[in-house]
Amino acid sequence: MKIIHKTLKLKSAKFLDFIDLTDEVEALVKTNRVKNGLVMVSSKHTTGAIRINEKEKGLVKDFRHFVTKLVPPDHYYHHNDLTERTENLVCEPGASDCLNGHSHILHLLMGATSETLSVIDGKLILGTWQRIFFIELDTGRPREVLIKIMSD
Amino acid sequence: MKIIHKTLKLKSAKFLDFIDLTDEVEALVKTNRVKNGLVMVSSKHTTGAIRINEKEKGLVKDFRHFVTKLVPPDHYYHHNDLTERTENLVCEPGASDCLNGHSHILHLLMGATSETLSVIDGKLILGTWQRIFFIELDTGRPREVLIKIMSD
Amino acid sequence: MKIIHKTLKLKSAKFLDFIDLTDEVEALVKTNRVKNGLVMVSSKHTTGAIRINEKEKGLVKDFRHFVTKLVPPDHYYHHNDLTERTENLVCEPGASDCLNGHSHILHLLMGATSETLSVIDGKLILGTWQRIFFIELDTGRPREVLIKIMSD
Repeated sequence: MKIIHKTLKLKSAKFLDFIDLTDEVEALVKTNRVKNGLVMVSSKHTTGAIRINEKEKGLVKDFRHFVTKLVPPDHYYHHNDLTERTENLVCEPGASDCLNGHSHILHLLMGATSETLSVIDGKLILGTWQRIFFIELDTGRPREVLIKIMSD
Repeated sequence: MKIIHKTLKLKSAKFLDFIDLTDEVEALVKTNRVKNGLVMVSSKHTTGAIRINEKEKGLVKDFRHFVTKLVPPDHYYHHNDLTERTENLVCEPGASDCLNGHSHILHLLMGATSETLSVIDGKLILGTWQRIFFIELDTGRPREVLIKIMSD
Repeated sequence: MKIIHKTLKLKSAKFLDFIDLTDEVEALVKTNRVKNGLVMVSSKHTTGAIRINEKEKGLVKDFRHFVTKLVPPDHYYHHNDLTERTENLVCEPGASDCLNGHSHILHLLMGATSETLSVIDGKLILGTWQRIFFIELDTGRPREVLIKIMSD
């Protein structure tokens, strides 16, 4: 059994930035001559998602519109209320990192920590339109994604 | 280590058709005498979901009602706007395949590309009510689902 | 290859109880001296979710508020309509177990059956704020979670 991992360091630009990771995942499979196995792509963040979908600019706009209406960033969130919050206050009171209740709610709803894919005969299996994305659910910042491969 | 895969060819009937794949997954485990391992069931589509839930006709109606209200098919989507869209235009202008913005938004929200299950002592582990479904998020059409098993 | 599994028996207190499983998953990795592999944490229930997110009391309140509004428990659901339902009626007519349409819709939306994590050099890989939760989507009750580890 062969177990490989690689950590990608990303820099997201803004809320709902879609960063396409497909080429890097395919390169890791190829470079390591993976034949048959599973590939897990996972976010190390609670407000950054992994998703597989089509790469098309209009969809990003549509998703931004939909999500901003579904989980409005400017609503009241207990998570953002520094008059009552006592846990995990690692940022300055009022800093944007502490005021991301909408990002967490969206992440809890989407369940977006990882996606698992398959390698068969040396090829990462993806349908015609499937691309692997890291989606920023918070403000733009440095992010880490772990690719883990288990194969024969 | 034993690695097995099988591609299922399905024909969905319509939007939110629930196709039960449980028997086929269990048969693959049994036929190949899988003892202990992981089973991944994955959709090769960006508008077709894999989900585990209860099989009950009322739930399908409820989900259809809920989803149609949450992501209305007849709203404006940039993805459907052929006056501005330039990418992935493989269907005739106006064809239903190009006008599925709601399907993509729903798929992005649900994160529905795959589910992973466990085999222990030759048995696919499912709770009392758990069944594995392919859920059509677009119009009815031919679909492919990959089952991949890694075991000892 | 080493394949380990353990079933956790939980007792959820109420709708949207977040039960932190992180310590138990880490203990299983440590006790079994797992070096490199994948860990799957999965719910055996169709109305109980596995999620990775931050542990902060305000977030639980926010998610409860959001979800109750998105999928109101007191709306009409075909799944709850005992005048038309014919399948899976294992509880007394009117018992709470049969009247959980909102729980199923939420579970279908969230796709919350399992999360997969990674072990590298003997350590369960989690980002700074990532904790593994079982989230109750129904009323409080006994629940089972399966942890499955495949490693070298």
